[in-house]
Amino acid sequence: MAVSRIGYISLYVTNLDAARRHYVEVVGLRETGRDAHGRVYLQAADNQDHHCLILTEALHAGIDHVAFKVGEVEDLAEAQAAVRARGIAVRGVPAGDALGAGAAIAFTLPSGQEMRLLHHLDKIGYATGMRNPNPVPPHGKPGARVTHLDHLLLAGERPADTAQFLIEVLDFNLSEQVVAPDGSVIAAFTTCGHTMHDLAIAPGPNGHLHHIAFGLESRSDVIGAVDIMKEAGTTLMEYGPTRHGVSGVTTIYFFDPAGNRNEVYNGAYQAGGVPGLIPPIVWQAQEFPRGAFYYESVVPESFFAEVT
Amino acid sequence: MAVSRIGYISLYVTNLDAARRHYVEVVGLRETGRDAHGRVYLQAADNQDHHCLILTEALHAGIDHVAFKVGEVEDLAEAQAAVRARGIAVRGVPAGDALGAGAAIAFTLPSGQEMRLLHHLDKIGYATGMRNPNPVPPHGKPGARVTHLDHLLLAGERPADTAQFLIEVLDFNLSEQVVAPDGSVIAAFTTCGHTMHDLAIAPGPNGHLHHIAFGLESRSDVIGAVDIMKEAGTTLMEYGPTRHGVSGVTTIYFFDPAGNRNEVYNGAYQAGGVPGLIPPIVWQAQEFPRGAFYYESVVPESFFAEVT
Amino acid sequence: MAVSRIGYISLYVTNLDAARRHYVEVVGLRETGRDAHGRVYLQAADNQDHHCLILTEALHAGIDHVAFKVGEVEDLAEAQAAVRARGIAVRGVPAGDALGAGAAIAFTLPSGQEMRLLHHLDKIGYATGMRNPNPVPPHGKPGARVTHLDHLLLAGERPADTAQFLIEVLDFNLSEQVVAPDGSVIAAFTTCGHTMHDLAIAPGPNGHLHHIAFGLESRSDVIGAVDIMKEAGTTLMEYGPTRHGVSGVTTIYFFDPAGNRNEVYNGAYQAGGVPGLIPPIVWQAQEFPRGAFYYESVVPESFFAEVT
Amino acid sequence: MAVSRIGYISLYVTNLDAARRHYVEVVGLRETGRDAHGRVYLQAADNQDHHCLILTEALHAGIDHVAFKVGEVEDLAEAQAAVRARGIAVRGVPAGDALGAGAAIAFTLPSGQEMRLLHHLDKIGYATGMRNPNPVPPHGKPGARVTHLDHLLLAGERPADTAQFLIEVLDFNLSEQVVAPDGSVIAAFTTCGHTMHDLAIAPGPNGHLHHIAFGLESRSDVIGAVDIMKEAGTTLMEYGPTRHGVSGVTTIYFFDPAGNRNEVYNGAYQAGGVPGLIPPIVWQAQEFPRGAFYYESVVPESFFAEVT
Repeated sequence: MAVSRIGYISLYVTNLDAARRHYVEVVGLRETGRDAHGRVYLQAADNQDHHCLILTEALHAGIDHVAFKVGEVEDLAEAQAAVRARGIAVRGVPAGDALGAGAAIAFTLPSGQEMRLLHHLDKIGYATGMRNPNPVPPHGKPGARVTHLDHLLLAGERPADTAQFLIEVLDFNLSEQVVAPDGSVIAAFTTCGHTMHDLAIAPGPNGHLHHIAFGLESRSDVIGAVDIMKEAGTTLMEYGPTRHGVSGVTTIYFFDPAGNRNEVYNGAYQAGGVPGLIPPIVWQAQEFPRGAFYYESVVPESFFAEVT
Repeated sequence: MAVSRIGYISLYVTNLDAARRHYVEVVGLRETGRDAHGRVYLQAADNQDHHCLILTEALHAGIDHVAFKVGEVEDLAEAQAAVRARGIAVRGVPAGDALGAGAAIAFTLPSGQEMRLLHHLDKIGYATGMRNPNPVPPHGKPGARVTHLDHLLLAGERPADTAQFLIEVLDFNLSEQVVAPDGSVIAAFTTCGHTMHDLAIAPGPNGHLHHIAFGLESRSDVIGAVDIMKEAGTTLMEYGPTRHGVSGVTTIYFFDPAGNRNEVYNGAYQAGGVPGLIPPIVWQAQEFPRGAFYYESVVPESFFAEVT
Repeated sequence: MAVSRIGYISLYVTNLDAARRHYVEVVGLRETGRDAHGRVYLQAADNQDHHCLILTEALHAGIDHVAFKVGEVEDLAEAQAAVRARGIAVRGVPAGDALGAGAAIAFTLPSGQEMRLLHHLDKIGYATGMRNPNPVPPHGKPGARVTHLDHLLLAGERPADTAQFLIEVLDFNLSEQVVAPDGSVIAAFTTCGHTMHDLAIAPGPNGHLHHIAFGLESRSDVIGAVDIMKEAGTTLMEYGPTRHGVSGVTTIYFFDPAGNRNEVYNGAYQAGGVPGLIPPIVWQAQEFPRGAFYYESVVPESFFAEVT
Repeated sequence: MAVSRIGYISLYVTNLDAARRHYVEVVGLRETGRDAHGRVYLQAADNQDHHCLILTEALHAGIDHVAFKVGEVEDLAEAQAAVRARGIAVRGVPAGDALGAGAAIAFTLPSGQEMRLLHHLDKIGYATGMRNPNPVPPHGKPGARVTHLDHLLLAGERPADTAQFLIEVLDFNLSEQVVAPDGSVIAAFTTCGHTMHDLAIAPGPNGHLHHIAFGLESRSDVIGAVDIMKEAGTTLMEYGPTRHGVSGVTTIYFFDPAGNRNEVYNGAYQAGGVPGLIPPIVWQAQEFPRGAFYYESVVPESFFAEVT
């Protein structure tokens, strides 16, 4: 079976207008649609799909669901069987449930968040167009110059369970992990494609979101993004610029107006993209502060305590 | 079938020592082995496989073969059948033919170069190691800070034939193409994974190589790479730094001591990674000078005339 | 006597509106005034003076005059005496001849261009303001992020004469020079302050301008500036990004709509700022192609042939 | 009188070898001499003078003295008279007291540190040489790519006294200041040349040093410097990368092995270089946390408490 890449993340936000402004004017996404339920759809510059992010107004921040794409339509039936065989209920989601999205299957991860798999998302083209395009989006446009939605980090009471599910049932690959002295897995970074991670899982309350992350083209763009956020005046910076030991990226963390944590980063390596074959990088728990924040080699307590 | 990513390129060089020095001290690869035939094996920092480049001393520069990796061992048999069904002969290559490489199949592309598919390459780990690694290779080490072998561009008398073969037989995706006023394909950029292109094909004599390309983490690193090449004093710069319209990357071109063209670049977008689904960017021939070299909007004649 | 730094350059342009748009929307200056003669005044972000550039509509492009600032009002009289002692006529320019400018003295350089010295320019503050400012101008604003007007290069039939005048009469310092095999000076780079050069002189027809140059904060900004120019679609790029051997800067050249050559660059070293004491870097003529364009090590003929 | 730029700083360190290694292998200075007293002399790449830093082994870290250069030999006598007229004792320092240094005058600043003025420092040339040089120091050399010693920040019980002395007696210019609600000066940033500041003064115990600062060519180099320090493993990072509101620079802070605080930064604007004429930027005390650390808008208590 071939889960091929992250499709989109559907988020709850407490003020739709404020959130939309944040993701357009600070993060730099383009608005690509609104549906009958008032949900806002957004996409980054370098992705042809209809959206990578859906915003739904609600009383609380947090994650509604994350959708991954499969390579062939038939992969959906195969995945459904495999998930059910693990004893996890699967429901069908009709095409059009999300704007531009084909039929999907939905189920709950061991860590309590809803995951969907789908094959089709309408194509809207790259931000610079599909015929004789300029290689860069205009510099005048608002926001940081994020290129694509890259990954998300979920919280879970037993991270190893979710990692195992992704690896054993959906053929994800394990690219890095943090292990306790007794060998048990504390946190796991998994990928279904060639990127270093599409979905990571770390200790925290089930059903919650730690952060969603967008890519930037260059380390300079990471610093530029901080400038843009400070100028906006509305964005709550949390951490950085710093460098992760895990994945090696240059990164900053901040919050959307609802409190959902965002990351923008540059420089992840490409993991192998060959199921079952990549030995993972192993972080011993006592070395993990350096793995989390290489420059500081300490992890601020709030960094893992706060989730939505 | 799942061809998953470029494995390695095997090159002919006219002076093995000079070539090895170039790829280690200028490009920044690590030497990972030598075999009984005297061939030199090299790998970039961010790839766990045994090698991404093999150098063989010969009377002429040029490409020996390019090897792509498949996701499952069984994909080899499936690929062999599909290639043969196209009327192209396939031969088996025993494990160990290249150091650290498993069994492969080999065949000739319509444009005359040898392509191999294999499943196994020994794992040697990332340059920074697999346990509690530092996120960056040491700054003191020689050469540009290339992260990985990214793609190659082949010459062919009928580029469309090779592109069609890759797309129809090996499930590659077409991410960009240059078309003549009559709609025929002049050049094609194809991908089997998530990167913008793994193998591209442009007009030129069959059997020849236009260039091999390595990735850099940052646009600043592209300029830094020029400095390093000028310091080395031995590298023949050809072009750049400039920006491609195609793929949008910031890039430089230069030659190894044998005359094989190299590229180092930053900033390719991630194509979709879903077979059959990505509409390609289309370049009309008259706009292609801008697509080739966005800053100058002209293509120097020598750029396509010189191949090895 | 203390000539302290470049004040402003007054340029002729053939279409005032087109030129104004270029310097605001491409170069990134702020418009700071218009006078009764219709002249447009502009300043960069990091300079408090009223202007660094004056645009006057005329039938031809070229330089009207360049104005340098002196440290004390009394320096004007001292300079007047010294210039006259050299046998060069000096005329007084009343305050207000240029908007916001105090009284000046004017004379003709040996290479035929008008030079002025003045002490006063009205202060308008930095672009980000003078009270609790943000450290960066807003990212949304149009144009490259130039920080300041840095220097100009004049053409002259006998460059050594102008260099000698600046050094002997106005206490400029010589930071770099290009010398012929017979020891005669071909080109000279002179500074009155701490920057590497404020005024340079190279072979060409008397009275003409080779280029004016603006500083950028970072090498990444140089590449970003090329993107902005290409987006604008109206700017004629000439050369780069490349690196000068002389001064060591990363640089690009382009033309304003009237044909006046512009440079934006990053990374000049700081020369000593102590009159009479800095030994200059010496370029032998045969090495100068590398000094001019380090990456290419050739000087395109048009680069020195075209002046305004 | 014309104090023209910072000459060098003489520091006390507790372990000469460890300090020398730090300034060569981490900061990236070149060792330029040792004298009969065992003192080590160092210089950055882009300065021709014999040294910008002297290290003397002692029981405590801290500042021995800071030396500024004057434009003409006669300025020394003028300065001596002016300082004495202020009621401050001046003593002569013979040529050769520091290696390569001409005769100097020495006196004590109101904040208790020794300041020297001198005219002569031997010239040793730029790191890349004085004839047909390459524009960049070799990438293989150890350490961050600092270009020059830029400024220092002194501690003082009454910062305004030292600032006033520099401005009124030595013709320094005030480029930025922090003022209390009652209008009194809390901290002052003064310059004698074109840079934003050569010497700043902030609240703290008399006679002590807050930090010395070196320039970098690019914002990317600031992040690169952090990598280099982490690789060295011996350097104690303190803060950043972040951005100062004051001066607008991108910056990091760290300590030498003796505990003297270092800064490397990129991007200071050029102040005017015209005595008495530049209105300073004014920071109100309540806005100063943003002025100190723009990204975080808080000042860690330890940042001002720790001095040497």
